[in-house]
Parts: sequence; structure tokens; C-alpha cells
Amino acid sequence: MTWFQTTLHLSAKPRGFHLVTSEILRQLPQLREFNLGIAHFFIQHTSASLALNENADPTVRHDLEAHFNQIAPENMPYFKHTLEGPDDMPAHIKAILIGESVSVPITHGKLNLGTWQGIYLCEHRDYGGERRIVVTLNGERN
Amino acid sequence: MTWFQTTLHLSAKPRGFHLVTSEILRQLPQLREFNLGIAHFFIQHTSASLALNENADPTVRHDLEAHFNQIAPENMPYFKHTLEGPDDMPAHIKAILIGESVSVPITHGKLNLGTWQGIYLCEHRDYGGERRIVVTLNGERN
Amino acid sequence: MTWFQTTLHLSAKPRGFHLVTSEILRQLPQLREFNLGIAHFFIQHTSASLALNENADPTVRHDLEAHFNQIAPENMPYFKHTLEGPDDMPAHIKAILIGESVSVPITHGKLNLGTWQGIYLCEHRDYGGERRIVVTLNGERN
Repeated sequence: MTWFQTTLHLSAKPRGFHLVTSEILRQLPQLREFNLGIAHFFIQHTSASLALNENADPTVRHDLEAHFNQIAPENMPYFKHTLEGPDDMPAHIKAILIGESVSVPITHGKLNLGTWQGIYLCEHRDYGGERRIVVTLNGERN
Repeated sequence: MTWFQTTLHLSAKPRGFHLVTSEILRQLPQLREFNLGIAHFFIQHTSASLALNENADPTVRHDLEAHFNQIAPENMPYFKHTLEGPDDMPAHIKAILIGESVSVPITHGKLNLGTWQGIYLCEHRDYGGERRIVVTLNGERN
Repeated sequence: MTWFQTTLHLSAKPRGFHLVTSEILRQLPQLREFNLGIAHFFIQHTSASLALNENADPTVRHDLEAHFNQIAPENMPYFKHTLEGPDDMPAHIKAILIGESVSVPITHGKLNLGTWQGIYLCEHRDYGGERRIVVTLNGERN
């Protein structure tokens, strides 16, 4: 078998950018069985995103949240989709901008990330709740 | 055989964000032969995008178009690439921001989308014409 | 063997958008051995991006750099991550917006790109240096 697929859950988080590499890998012991391949992480939501970025200084995550609130502000006068609250339409815009999935090479049973790369859950709602991630691993087994 | 590849055509659409899940799936009966895998959708253009977002309320698509026109406006004074019309350079910017492909997990012969997720064709040109999508399915057959 | 993986290096480039299709393909003779599949290109950095866009008129690349400097300007008053220079935090924002990977269909031993599509290295730092790309090819062999 060269495929593995599962659905993980990430705990509810406040609006903002969160480093979740450990929270994901803790739930994915099957990764080490793949010698070479691709790990695909897919969020089943339209108001939160997955991304890769700096895994060290937390001020990067602060600044990303601050600046994405400039790129996609609340209460724009032309917004018609307002029934679910002022944070909802900006959340859809951010989700389209950042994207719902990341694909990472697998090498020798590990994600082959750069030194400074980590996986982000980008939570765009004020109260987004738990988030579901479909993980699909494909590759050559050890 | 665990691979399938084809080129689909999406009918010409006006500038804006369009839900095309049905138009794609109608042309992709082979999907149901895959038990588990990844479906890769790739648009062969530089002024239109593929994305995933809300499949219900059409005002989301209206607001996305309105706001992306703020993020990437026409006629910026520093634009040099203007020969193909004022909608062309914003189209390239939006295409880079949103991206040319989406990858979706396949589970039991279906796209494993979240409840509210659908596939969008984001048409950034005023008159973009028909658009070509290369679809690549890879997975375990039933 | 239906998998191939390698790490390529792209030479140091000035800040801006650069067409690198040839620089990548020159280092990837293995591509022609795959009849049908997916080529995954992944940059192991958090301040540079990979994207696909217009491969002809260089003014497109000029205008992209000009406009992304409007979307993610330097020296925003709320930036806290400033120790690595004014170009650093905008680089992280652009990297999240554009993304760290592209996936391209392989057909008959070639990237199945549209007529006008090429691969871009988007260098967001003033002096980013050489950049590492992990390439993973997966498909049916000839």
C-alpha cells in the first residue's frame, strides 16, 4: 500500500496565524513509513487556511494577522454577505488568498521542510471552532 | 492503472467568481473509479484562477469580485503591461494571488470537500472565453 | 520506479519576479522518463515563492513586483518583526500570498503548461541568495 488517508482535528484557536506542525505530526505516526513521496494537507473549510511560513519568531504571526486585516478589512461598503458577522466575508477573502491546502515533499519518513518552515493554521473567524484537515500521504514505503 | 488524465473545457464566463463544481464533475465520470487518492485541477491560463470557497450564498462570489478589484485595481500609474487592455494586468496579479490549481482528496469515488466547499473558476478578464483545465487523478482503484 | 525526487538550486537573483522554467528544466532530465503524472516544485524558504504566470512580455514581471510592493509595503507601523530589515516582513507576507509550491501535470515527458505559462521564482528579499527547490516527480514511466 502506497497511500494513506485520514482526517485530523485541530483544536479551536483564536483568530490569527498559528504554528501547528507539532499538533499535526503528533496525529500522523504513519508518516515515518514513507521513504519518499508527497504529504497533502487539506482544510475542509472556507474561512480558515493552511500555509507554510516562519517557525521561529512569533512576531511574524502577529504581523501577518495585522497586515491581512488591512488587505481584507471588515465592513467594506460593497459587502453584501454580512449576515454571519463582520468577520465572515474577510475570512472568505483571506481563505481564497492563502489557500486551503499545502503539499510537502516526504523524504526518509519526514516532511522535507526548510529550516525555518512550519505549517500554519490561519484562523480567519473570531470563533472558528475545531477545524478538520484531510491528510493524504502517497509515496514509496520503506 | 492508477492514473487518469484529461483536458476539460469550461464554457466562457463573464468576469467574476463562478461555482463550477457541477460543470467539472459532469465531465469526469472516471472519478468514481478511484477509492482513495488526489484529484489535481490545473488551469492552463495566466489570467484566470481555480480556487475553493463557499458553495451556497452567491453574495460571497459578488463580494470576492468587488474586493479583488480593490486589491488589484485597473490603471495603476506604474503599470507598463497595458497593451492588452486595462483588465489584463490586474488579471495577472489576481492569477498569481489565487493560483492556477487546486488539489482535492478523493475518498470513495468522490471529492472529499467540506460541506460548504465548491470549486470556483475565477475569471479575471472581461472576455476570457472558454478555459482549459487539465485534470489528473491518481489513487487506488476500486 | 514511479517516483523521483531531487533538490535543485536556483542562482541568487535580485528582488523581483523571475522566469525560471529553463533554469529548472535544465537540471531535470528525468522529466522525460515520465509519460503521465504530476511534477511538484517546492521552495524551502519563507521569503521567496514559486508561481506560474506569463512567460513572454517582461513588463508583466515588472508590474507584479511594483504592485506586490503596494499590497505588502515596508515599514508598516504595526510591524514588530523588523530586526532582519524592512524587506523581511513584506517578504513573509508575499510568500504566504503567493505560496511555496506549484504542481504541474506531466504529459508525454513534458510539463503540460499552457502556451503562455512559465515558472516564476518570486524573490521577495533584497539579497535572498541562492534558493533551494525540492522537486518530486510521480507518474507512469514510459
